[in-house]
This record gives sequence, C-alpha cells and structure tokens, in this order.
Amino acid sequence: MPPSRTPSPPPQPRLRDVAAAAGVHPATASRALNPATRSQVNAETARRVQRAAKDLGYRPNPIARSLKTSRTDTVGLVIPDLTNPYFPPIVRGIESELEPAGYHAWIVDTHDDAERERARIESLRSRQVEGLIVATARLDHPYLAELHAQGMPMVLINRRVQGLDIPCVTLDDEAGVTLAVGHLAGLGHTRIAMLAGPADTSTGAARTRAFRHAVHDLGLADDPALIVETGHFGEEAGAAGLRTLLDGGARFTAVVAANDLLALGCYDVMAERGINCPEQLSVVGFNDMPFLDRLGPPLTTVHVPHHVIGAEAARMLLDRIADPGRPPRSTLLPVSLVVRGSTAAPGR
Amino acid sequence: MPPSRTPSPPPQPRLRDVAAAAGVHPATASRALNPATRSQVNAETARRVQRAAKDLGYRPNPIARSLKTSRTDTVGLVIPDLTNPYFPPIVRGIESELEPAGYHAWIVDTHDDAERERARIESLRSRQVEGLIVATARLDHPYLAELHAQGMPMVLINRRVQGLDIPCVTLDDEAGVTLAVGHLAGLGHTRIAMLAGPADTSTGAARTRAFRHAVHDLGLADDPALIVETGHFGEEAGAAGLRTLLDGGARFTAVVAANDLLALGCYDVMAERGINCPEQLSVVGFNDMPFLDRLGPPLTTVHVPHHVIGAEAARMLLDRIADPGRPPRSTLLPVSLVVRGSTAAPGR
Repeated sequence: MPPSRTPSPPPQPRLRDVAAAAGVHPATASRALNPATRSQVNAETARRVQRAAKDLGYRPNPIARSLKTSRTDTVGLVIPDLTNPYFPPIVRGIESELEPAGYHAWIVDTHDDAERERARIESLRSRQVEGLIVATARLDHPYLAELHAQGMPMVLINRRVQGLDIPCVTLDDEAGVTLAVGHLAGLGHTRIAMLAGPADTSTGAARTRAFRHAVHDLGLADDPALIVETGHFGEEAGAAGLRTLLDGGARFTAVVAANDLLALGCYDVMAERGINCPEQLSVVGFNDMPFLDRLGPPLTTVHVPHHVIGAEAARMLLDRIADPGRPPRSTLLPVSLVVRGSTAAPGR
Repeated sequence: MPPSRTPSPPPQPRLRDVAAAAGVHPATASRALNPATRSQVNAETARRVQRAAKDLGYRPNPIARSLKTSRTDTVGLVIPDLTNPYFPPIVRGIESELEPAGYHAWIVDTHDDAERERARIESLRSRQVEGLIVATARLDHPYLAELHAQGMPMVLINRRVQGLDIPCVTLDDEAGVTLAVGHLAGLGHTRIAMLAGPADTSTGAARTRAFRHAVHDLGLADDPALIVETGHFGEEAGAAGLRTLLDGGARFTAVVAANDLLALGCYDVMAERGINCPEQLSVVGFNDMPFLDRLGPPLTTVHVPHHVIGAEAARMLLDRIADPGRPPRSTLLPVSLVVRGSTAAPGR
C-alpha cells in the first residue's frame, strides 16, 4: 500500500535568482549555464553567471527543462536477469559511453518475464526515456515491434528480433560454438551433447544451428537425441536439460551449453549424481561471465567482449537519438575460446 | 562528445482530450485516473473516464505531475560495485517492496569512489529522487552527513555512519565473525589470520573487533601480525592481503575474510603459490553471495538474508518519505554460518 506522503521540498535558488545576481536576463543566464548554448553568450557574462550560480548553490532542474525540450537525458536499459553476473560488466560498458555524453541509464530487470517487461518499459516511457537498450529480445517480439513502429529509438544487445531493422550489437554465435565443438573434437570426443537454450531467441537458435553444422562438418555423432532445448537461459533449466539427457540414456562424453548459467546447472547435476568433471564429462559454456575461473573445475567457455558490447550499444543509441532518420547499423563482435579445467580427453 | 539532438516527441493525447471524450471537466478526469483520488468520483463517471483514456491511448505524464507535487515516485539506490554478485539479490528485495507502492529505483554504481559517488548522487538529486538507499557508507562520511542535514530521506544498508541518526539495515557482524572463528577453533585451528576490510567502514571495523574478541575469548593466538587491513572489499585487495600475510612470515592455518570477494582473492593467491585449500589453508568468507557453492572448493561463509536486507530497507525508506518527522528506526538482521569445502582441520 503506498504510504501517504508529505512533500517538503527544500527551498532552492531559481534561475531568476541567478540572473538577478549576475545582472542579466533569465534567458541569458539559461544560455550561459547550458554547455550546449554557452558559446552564444559573451565569455565574461558566462563566467559571471556561472559564478553567481555557484555562489547561490543553484542546481538546474532537468525535470522542468525536459517539459520544454522533450529531453530527459535518460535511456532505459532492459535486462532479463540482473543476478546473472554476465550483465553488470556490460552495464559498465554502457555507462562508460553514456556518462560523458551527459546521459544516464535507468536499469530495469524483467526477470525474463514478458508481462513484467511490458510493465517496466511502459514505466520507462511514462518517464520519457529517450531510447532503450534491450537485452531481452526474442525472435518474434510483437511488443518491441510495436515500440519500434512508434519511433522509440532502440538498440538490441546479444539478441535480434526477426524481420525488424532495429540496430543491434550481437556476438559471433556461430564462431563461438564452432570453436567449442572443435576444441572437444580435438580432445577426442565424438559424441557431444548440446544444451540449446530457448529456440525463440536468436542466440539459442543460432548456437544450435552452429552446433549441428559443426558436428556434421567434423564427422561427429549427428544425433537429434543429443540436443535438448531449454526453456530458459538459467541454472535450473541447465540442470533439467542435463537430467533429461542422462535419463534418456543417450551416450555422450561432453556437453556444449548455450550459455554459462546452463553450464552451471550441469555442475549441480554432476555433483548430485557423482559424475566427475572433466574425467567423465567435459562441459563448455558461452559468455565467460565473471568468476568462472574460480569454479571447481574452472569452466572452459566462449569469451565475449562484455565492455565493448555495452559501449558499442550506447554509442549506437546516442547516434540514433541524435539522428533518428539514419539507416540502422549493426555490429557483430568477435569471440574466442578460453580453455580451462572443465574439458579434457574423454575417459581420461 | 554529446551528439546534437533533434527532439521529435510523438503526439500524445492529453488529459483534456480524455475529459472531452468522457464529457467531464479535466479536474474530474484527473481524479478518476488517479487511484489515490478515484473514490472522490462517481463510480460510473470514473469508469467512463478510464474507458476514454484507454481508447485514446492516454498515458499520464509523471514528469508534469512531479512539477506540481514535488513527487517523482523514484528513489536512488547507491551501490559501491554492481559487479559484486552480492548486490543484485538485494536490489531484487528492494524492488519487491518499492514496486507495489508505485515507486521505482534508480541504481547508481559508484565504483567505490567518493568523487564518483558525489557526482552520481547529485545527478539523482537533480532528477528529484524522493529518497536514497545507500550501501556505500563510511564511518566518517561528510557528504552523507550533508545530505542528511538537508533533509534528504535516506536508509543505509550494511554499513553505518558514526554519529548520524540515519535509519539503517545492518547485519549482526559480531555474531557472524564469532561463528566463523568458533567453527575454525572447533576444527582445531589455533593460529587464525584475518583479512580485515577497510577500517573506515562500520562493517570492516566491527568484524575486526569481533575477530579480536573471539580469538581472545577462545584462547587462540592473539597476534597483531595476523590481522591485515585491506583498503577495499574487492578481490585484488584480498589477494594483496594474503600475500602480505604469507610474505610477512607469520604462521597461520586459516583465514577469516571480512567479505566473500576478499576470500576469492585468497583463492587466486593459493592457486598462484600452490597452496591447497582446505588441506593447507582454510578460508571463510562473509555475505554468502551467489555462486560460492560452485567454487573450487565451495566457500564456507557467513550467510546474510539478501532479499530481506533490501525489502526492509525499502519499507523503511517509504515510511521515512511518508513521515519525515518520525524518529529513525534501525534493523539488525541475524546471520548464520554455511559450512562448505573451504574449511577443514589444520594439516589434514
């Protein structure tokens, strides 16, 4: 229940007070205080206004300004799961570009839930964010299509929406999975399973497709029973997926997981069933989120450039806000394989 | 460099359009659309206004409202390090209480840097947040004292500021460290070292004090050379602290770290020097952040109720905003010890 509130705003100096103290018209004071328009004012006048503002403790009111200009200098950042350690380094990359441009990011955590996503984005819109960076895209995503059609500036990260020309920063999913399968094949594995992630995401679909191509090209077991689609990208989904594989009786000596959390779910099942990793089962993840090097065993995974993903997305969104008419540009970022202790020759 | 921007706000229906469509005065439409005042309007009229609002796609403008009421329905959430997995579950606890009350949290990450903290909080203030939840307190914190004196509603989490009656949600630091030392003593350790965290934080200071009392009370080695103060609460500080202990030549068979990240830093040094954990060195952390159960070895640590910390802080802040005059109330939350694989009898 919302508490009843007693607003008590502290009295603050206003623009007209600064203007009076500096002996100028409020419009001149306003121009002098805004870095974007300061050059329109005589330099000595600008200095006098800035000194008066400082002496009075004047703080510009971006809320009042935003009503006049439709600018709020804020963008929304839509993340499926803030407790996934993969995202905070991306957030830092985003902030590294937004902050020097005077922008602030408003983070919302959708808990990987479509209804919650809509409610939180509507709340961002009512606060007049100027654009969105979205990490929750699905291949078929009517709500994002609707926002796009309404002209909301957006950049997608990690995942794409099918058939929409929204700029996006994605990873070379195919190269990553090909590296993972190649590494396992090089160790001698011939029966490799895949925890495929949700097929309704571009990452899930592309990584699964790449897996099929890689096992085929390398002449490994090309058995549909070795691929399990998981409904989510979380640890419980990964655990359920590995249990399905093990209980289904398929033989395999290695697992490629479509992201690191799915791989962590495998760790849980291996612990509960007494399966040694990597001696009895090798596991590879995707994302190289923080802390994997300290796991028991440290996880072999596909490294992606977290900070660059965020920084590039922020730059693209600022460009988009500056010029909504420019043709959308997308960026595909390279990945690499980090070999750690969770992979070894089969039956070592 | 900030890009030049071309604002192009989509035309949106206004309150007066809704009122006209429903055939009522705008003031009536406004009351009908606000859940807090809806009961002042005839039920049939309220329904008609709501239907008109829905048909027209009307969205209330909280920015315009905030100018009239000084209310923005937002609070700031000041976190030292968003990449520390300890914080996201606390954020979820905060949101679980704020959202039903119609409030939204604006997360800022200070990177454990005082200058950045001030800049980010000033930015929150210029956006007229109604209050702050602050996780970055230091025992002597002039800037927070200044905000408090200016009447900014605040709740501190984890840490306190000395001599200020700001409401806070803190953990039973003393009980946690006493449990950790007692556990190690029970295993047979007599020379236990402490990575103490920054002494200018209430958590650092209280945990160190508790450590001194515990080793004294249990008749263990009470040697100042076994306590190293770390300047930060991060992994590098923990690694540096353990290197200092090892290079100083002090004998010890176990380490109590003042938080989990310091303990993770110990893992790095043990790996680089070939020290087996727990055979040659036992390690205990504090916070029970996510993923510790999957480390190699899983970390024994002090569990704290993450979600409750956040939820309780949010409730206290909402109370504070509703009634700034009420005497500050604080909450001390209980902790427990989670024994995992990083602790064992010495020289096992």
